[in-house]
Amino acid sequence: MTAPLTGQLPVPPAIIRRSPGATGSARPDLRVTALGGGHGLSASLTALRLVAGHLTAVVTVADDGGSSGTIRREMDVLPPGDLRMALAALCDDTDWGRTWAQVMQHRFRATAVASDESTLENHALGNLLIVALWELLGDPVDGLRWAGALLRAHGEVLPVSRVPLTIGGDVLTTDADGALRTRRVQGQVALARAAREGRVAGLGLIPEDAPATPEALSAIELADWVVIGPGSLYTSVLPHLLMPDVREALTSTPAGRIFVLNLHTGTQETTGMTHADHLRALRAHAPGLGLDVVVADAEAVTDRAAVVQEARRLGARVAFSRVSSAHDPQVHDPLRLAVALAEAMEG
Amino acid sequence: MTAPLTGQLPVPPAIIRRSPGATGSARPDLRVTALGGGHGLSASLTALRLVAGHLTAVVTVADDGGSSGTIRREMDVLPPGDLRMALAALCDDTDWGRTWAQVMQHRFRATAVASDESTLENHALGNLLIVALWELLGDPVDGLRWAGALLRAHGEVLPVSRVPLTIGGDVLTTDADGALRTRRVQGQVALARAAREGRVAGLGLIPEDAPATPEALSAIELADWVVIGPGSLYTSVLPHLLMPDVREALTSTPAGRIFVLNLHTGTQETTGMTHADHLRALRAHAPGLGLDVVVADAEAVTDRAAVVQEARRLGARVAFSRVSSAHDPQVHDPLRLAVALAEAMEG
Repeated sequence: MTAPLTGQLPVPPAIIRRSPGATGSARPDLRVTALGGGHGLSASLTALRLVAGHLTAVVTVADDGGSSGTIRREMDVLPPGDLRMALAALCDDTDWGRTWAQVMQHRFRATAVASDESTLENHALGNLLIVALWELLGDPVDGLRWAGALLRAHGEVLPVSRVPLTIGGDVLTTDADGALRTRRVQGQVALARAAREGRVAGLGLIPEDAPATPEALSAIELADWVVIGPGSLYTSVLPHLLMPDVREALTSTPAGRIFVLNLHTGTQETTGMTHADHLRALRAHAPGLGLDVVVADAEAVTDRAAVVQEARRLGARVAFSRVSSAHDPQVHDPLRLAVALAEAMEG
Repeated sequence: MTAPLTGQLPVPPAIIRRSPGATGSARPDLRVTALGGGHGLSASLTALRLVAGHLTAVVTVADDGGSSGTIRREMDVLPPGDLRMALAALCDDTDWGRTWAQVMQHRFRATAVASDESTLENHALGNLLIVALWELLGDPVDGLRWAGALLRAHGEVLPVSRVPLTIGGDVLTTDADGALRTRRVQGQVALARAAREGRVAGLGLIPEDAPATPEALSAIELADWVVIGPGSLYTSVLPHLLMPDVREALTSTPAGRIFVLNLHTGTQETTGMTHADHLRALRAHAPGLGLDVVVADAEAVTDRAAVVQEARRLGARVAFSRVSSAHDPQVHDPLRLAVALAEAMEG
C-alpha cells in the first residue's frame, strides 16, 4: 500500500474552489498570490479569501522547530506546519470544511499517566496527514492538492521549493567590553532566538541555489496582485526573497505588489527593529524589487514618517488603516485586513 | 482548536452509502452486520460489500499490539487499528475513496539516517486520524462516521464497545516432567503468543461488564444476516462473544447467523486446533447461540465430518466451497467469498 500512486492523477486543479467570500465580496476574476509563512500568512489568507476569487499561497519551507522540525529530521520531507496552517485558513466555510480544518490543526495530547513516554504529543495531525500524502504520491504539490481537496480549500497552497531549506545568518552582538562579535547561526529556531540578542546580517539559505517550485513562480507571474507578509521577518518573509528565482519572478511580474507590515515589531525575533527597519531589510535583501502599496496599521506603526520615506524608496505609497483586532491588538482582524487589501488593490 | 465540537452534528447516517457492488450485484435492501477484527474482518467486508446494500461492521477493541497498542497506552482511547482496516475495506471504489483508504492504511517510514530516534515509524496515519477525530468530537462512533464520510464508505464501522477491552486467559502447558501448569495471561499480544505453547482456557475480558455500543447491538438486532468471522479466534472472534449483551443480541436477533471458518487453523495462536475445535470453542464461549450456516473452504477444511457434526450441534448446515485466493491459499478471495456468502443467504 506504500507504492506511489503512479498512473493515478492528482486531484485536478478544477477542484480548487473560487472564493465566493462571506457575503459574495470576492471579485471572481481577481488573482492574488500571497507569500509568507506561519500565523502571518494565515492572517493574510483569511483576509484575501474575502477579496479574491483565485487565491494561491506560496509558503516558506525553512521551518525547523516543533512538530515540523521533528518530522523534517525524521522523514526527510518538507516541514509541513506552515503549509498545513495555510490550508486550514482556506478551508471551505461549511461543517465539512471547518471540521476537517480542525482535525488538521488538532495536536495530540498525551494522557498524564504516560506523558513521559509519549511519542505523539504535540504533533499536529495535519502535519502527519500531509506527510502521508507526500510519501504515497511522491510529490509535495500533488499531496497538498489532495489535502486541499479534503478541506474543499478556497485556493491552492504551494511550497516555495520542493527542497527543504535551512536559513542561516551572522548575528552581531557587542560584548560587555564593547567588542563586536559575529556568530554564524543556522536554522530558523536558532536564528529567531539569536536575533533577539543582536543584529542579523549575511542572511542566506542552504542550499543557496534551491530551485523554486515552478507552480509557485507561475502563480507569482500570473497574479493580478502579489501580497508579501505579514509574518516573522527572518523566518516567514525574507526566506522567499533569498531565493533568486522567486526574487526575479517578484521583480518581473506585471502584478501589483503589496507589503503588509507586521503589527508589532518589538516581539520575538525583531526586537529593536522599527517598521521602517523592516522595509529597509526588504530593500536590502531584494534590491530592485519595487512595491506598489505598503499596508500599515494606523496605531501599531508609530514611525510614520520613516515608513512613508522607506516605502517611497521602494516605489510604494503607504495605506494606513486600522487592521488589528479589537480583541487582541497583536493580531490582524481578518475583515479589517480584507478591507485594507481590497482598497489597496483598487488604488 | 481542541475543544469538542459541541453543537456541531456528526455526519448524519444518510451520508453512509449503500453498496452498489462492483457490478450492481448487491441486494439493495439486504442488511448485513459483520463481527470480527483484523484482516479477517477486512476479508468479510470486502466480500459483503458486493452482497449487501446495508453493511455494518462491529469491531473488536481488545488489540494491544503495534501502532494501536502504543496509541491505546499513550492516549487512553480505543485501539484504532482494527476499526481503520474495516473502514479501508469499505472505501468508495473511486480515485477519491481508494486514495484516502491508502492514506489511512499508510505507515510512516523513517529515513535510515534517523530511524533510531524515530517516533512515528510504524504508525498508520489512519490510526492517528481516527484518534484526532475522537479527541475533537469526544465520541468514538461520531469520529468513525467522519472517517467513513472521508472514505465515502459503503457501510458503517462501529466499535463493539466504547471502553477499551483487555482479553485474558489461562494457558495450560505441560512441563517436561509431565506436570500440568496454568499460567494467567493478559493482553491480546501475550495471549496470542502463549496460545501457541498451550491450550487456552478461562477466557475473559477486562472489564468484564463493559457495555456494548448500543449502535452495535441495534445493528445486530436489525440485520437480516449476521456474519461472524473469519479472524483470529482469541483476538478477533471470541472477544465479541465474551460480552454478555453482544451474546444476548446475537442469540435473540431474528437475523440469520453465518460463521465463516478460517482457512488455516495451524498458524499463529491456534496451533494444534482443528476447524471443528474452532466451532467447539464458539459453542463453549457462547452457549445457547445457534448458527444457520457455517461457510468452510472446501480445500482448507480437512476434518469435514467433524466440522459437519459440530455445526449440527450449533444448528447449522455447512456450506463447503472454494473461498481461498488462487494466488495465496492463506487468504480469502473476495469474489469467491462473496459468492459463498450470497448463496448461504439464499439458503
